[in-house]
Amino acid sequence: MQGANSRDRQLRERAEAVIPGGMYGHQAVGLLPDDYPQFFEKGEGAYIWDVDGRRYLDFMCAYGPNLFGYANPQIDAAYVRQLGLGDTLTGPTALMVELAEAMVGMVSHASWAMFCKNGTDATSMALTVARAHTRRKSVIRAKGAYHGAAAWCTPRPAGVIESDRAHQLFCDYNDVASLEAAAAQAGDDLACIFAAPFKHDAFIDQAEPDLAYARKAREICDRTGALLIVDDVRAGLRLARDCSWSKIGVQPDLSTWGKCIANGHPISALMGSEVARKAAASIYVTGSFWYQAAPMAAALETLRLVRETDYLERITALGQRLRDGLAERAQAAGLAMRQTGPVTMRLFLFDDDPDLRKGFCFASALLERGVYTHPWHNMFLCAAMAEADIDLALDSAEAAFGVLSRGAASLAPVEKLAFLSAGAR
Amino acid sequence: MQGANSRDRQLRERAEAVIPGGMYGHQAVGLLPDDYPQFFEKGEGAYIWDVDGRRYLDFMCAYGPNLFGYANPQIDAAYVRQLGLGDTLTGPTALMVELAEAMVGMVSHASWAMFCKNGTDATSMALTVARAHTRRKSVIRAKGAYHGAAAWCTPRPAGVIESDRAHQLFCDYNDVASLEAAAAQAGDDLACIFAAPFKHDAFIDQAEPDLAYARKAREICDRTGALLIVDDVRAGLRLARDCSWSKIGVQPDLSTWGKCIANGHPISALMGSEVARKAAASIYVTGSFWYQAAPMAAALETLRLVRETDYLERITALGQRLRDGLAERAQAAGLAMRQTGPVTMRLFLFDDDPDLRKGFCFASALLERGVYTHPWHNMFLCAAMAEADIDLALDSAEAAFGVLSRGAASLAPVEKLAFLSAGAR
Repeated sequence: MQGANSRDRQLRERAEAVIPGGMYGHQAVGLLPDDYPQFFEKGEGAYIWDVDGRRYLDFMCAYGPNLFGYANPQIDAAYVRQLGLGDTLTGPTALMVELAEAMVGMVSHASWAMFCKNGTDATSMALTVARAHTRRKSVIRAKGAYHGAAAWCTPRPAGVIESDRAHQLFCDYNDVASLEAAAAQAGDDLACIFAAPFKHDAFIDQAEPDLAYARKAREICDRTGALLIVDDVRAGLRLARDCSWSKIGVQPDLSTWGKCIANGHPISALMGSEVARKAAASIYVTGSFWYQAAPMAAALETLRLVRETDYLERITALGQRLRDGLAERAQAAGLAMRQTGPVTMRLFLFDDDPDLRKGFCFASALLERGVYTHPWHNMFLCAAMAEADIDLALDSAEAAFGVLSRGAASLAPVEKLAFLSAGAR
Repeated sequence: MQGANSRDRQLRERAEAVIPGGMYGHQAVGLLPDDYPQFFEKGEGAYIWDVDGRRYLDFMCAYGPNLFGYANPQIDAAYVRQLGLGDTLTGPTALMVELAEAMVGMVSHASWAMFCKNGTDATSMALTVARAHTRRKSVIRAKGAYHGAAAWCTPRPAGVIESDRAHQLFCDYNDVASLEAAAAQAGDDLACIFAAPFKHDAFIDQAEPDLAYARKAREICDRTGALLIVDDVRAGLRLARDCSWSKIGVQPDLSTWGKCIANGHPISALMGSEVARKAAASIYVTGSFWYQAAPMAAALETLRLVRETDYLERITALGQRLRDGLAERAQAAGLAMRQTGPVTMRLFLFDDDPDLRKGFCFASALLERGVYTHPWHNMFLCAAMAEADIDLALDSAEAAFGVLSRGAASLAPVEKLAFLSAGAR
């Protein structure tokens, strides 16, 4: 935490009075190192400024939404232009049709789209569509996989009751046998299988999808008539210009999108194949702001940049350069760091670090040097990053590895992450 | 429906291909008269333009969000200014604290606020907080009352399974005996009572809350330790500059807000009293865009207008003038029209009109004259309306009553609303 006179500290004290716990949700810094700021002032390109004026190269990208740079001039201009014309009206604008066409043109498995606001809206709608389509109840999803924060899927059980989680069966990601066992348990009641495009659970190593696992999920759905759902809310557009599993040749029936499809403007989507169209038309879902036009204008501009620029090749090359540079510097410092997940969405963990005290030390040393990383959640690259930014990150990492290797033996335990070593997960 | 060459018709055909059913949710016009446009182009003040360039005085106000006029210059300027600084970032800005303070300053029962995107987010969070607080499961809500479109509350059952609706008990709005019976049925398992601030169900007469009913709800909660939730998503700020039940002196433990708190910019809120703070801090809820700063800037400006202008007195006076003028003209035309609900959020229904053929005829005649009303959903007044607009509405209504009384005997049945007379509701 910042010094007593910092603006961040003052805001935290005020927040404590009017926001339960001072902050909630995925952007609460309660489980981050104490020196991480809670409140920010500004974002531009790949950089954020905290309320005490410190600038950081931001490897969290707003937890995903920032794909083409904060305050992207082209995308924000499209938003503002539409805002002046009409945004939340008594009906949708033509942009809703244009955006559905653009999304369908991009996502090869899909022939339709429905727009909403939260990623959780899209995953919850996917579940409802699957149940409407199959007239069955059971859902298979991977243990520990995040699919949103509604009662049926939120990772923390407070306030959630047993019936909220009824008819859910769990497998282990990439474990074909556990997937088959769950399908056998569902019997003739299987409505759908949820799949993260890669294993991006918090606190543990990420994993790319095994082809055998993905194919087995598709095969079970084909055999039983259940729907396969790829939850691309977090990873969408950072792995492919299509559903992320298009890269491994496995097509879902439904896919969920959000985060960066309008570069941080609020819109998410459920997309589906022809087979699920009728069920999708039968459900009643809606929201006060789901048809607002300005985020759709921003999404159209974002998708134009997706189609017309080499952003994906660039962030992949930058990610590879970061990966290689970090591996080299960690090794030179005699530190065993694991980098897992796709290079555009990496997670770093150190060996023999059950309560993440090494990870916290490394992250804090980077933060001090103006580089914002996350010690236990996958990070994100954005197209506003340049080679010079990766150089800055690598130079800072070299210094941070030095701090860590000099201090490793005497690091204090991270009390707030003691639950990790206690095996609570 | 518009002519074959209209832009609306062309968009509907394109939408049919890429959006299930062509459109979904509360802004789908499938259950409105055939001449209602589906797609809009523009909004300014109290007016909307459809994609064929026709202009309407809009009594739907985007189904609530438009309180201070479409494209309100002050509110939108606040949005755009903040957008240039920082919107969806890696953490919240100071505006989140300022907005929570402003909301808490306005809502007398509340000492904290949590922000989200959909009204449904706020009502679903209220349910989770109540269950976390009480460690009980049962919910009482009024039959037919709308509290959102998640599986636990959506009005259409497709894709919803029994466990989604478990532990829900129903009473009749304003019926004390049915409320007591539901509470008795809940026994020692009552977590909360949901209350709409007034009865604003679709298709039927609206009703102001009976004081005895509201007090009974409060009393049951006091006696059992359950939480009383006033769902002010739809009515908030159109009845009071506080929770709507403050007018009748009944304070809830939780209240839900959305729609117009940022004049159409996407933000909603759950607010609560001290008693529920700890439970609120214990639940895990979040969304990709919940902490975006630009809607918070717009909400702060909206709340400033709420505090500093006589908007509420003005829309109330305009609503009264509309009500009186309509009553007079309906009577002169020999038509029995019921106007129910608060004057700022009226619903019009005609006597002896089970499939709403009279209502459709009246609404269509108004639409043709440039006045957009709704034949079965409560309408909304906004502060951008002036006396001249009400005059326009009354002149148009006079003509529309004429059309109706001349044609009443020969109106065709409204097939798509046949379910109403079949008693499906």
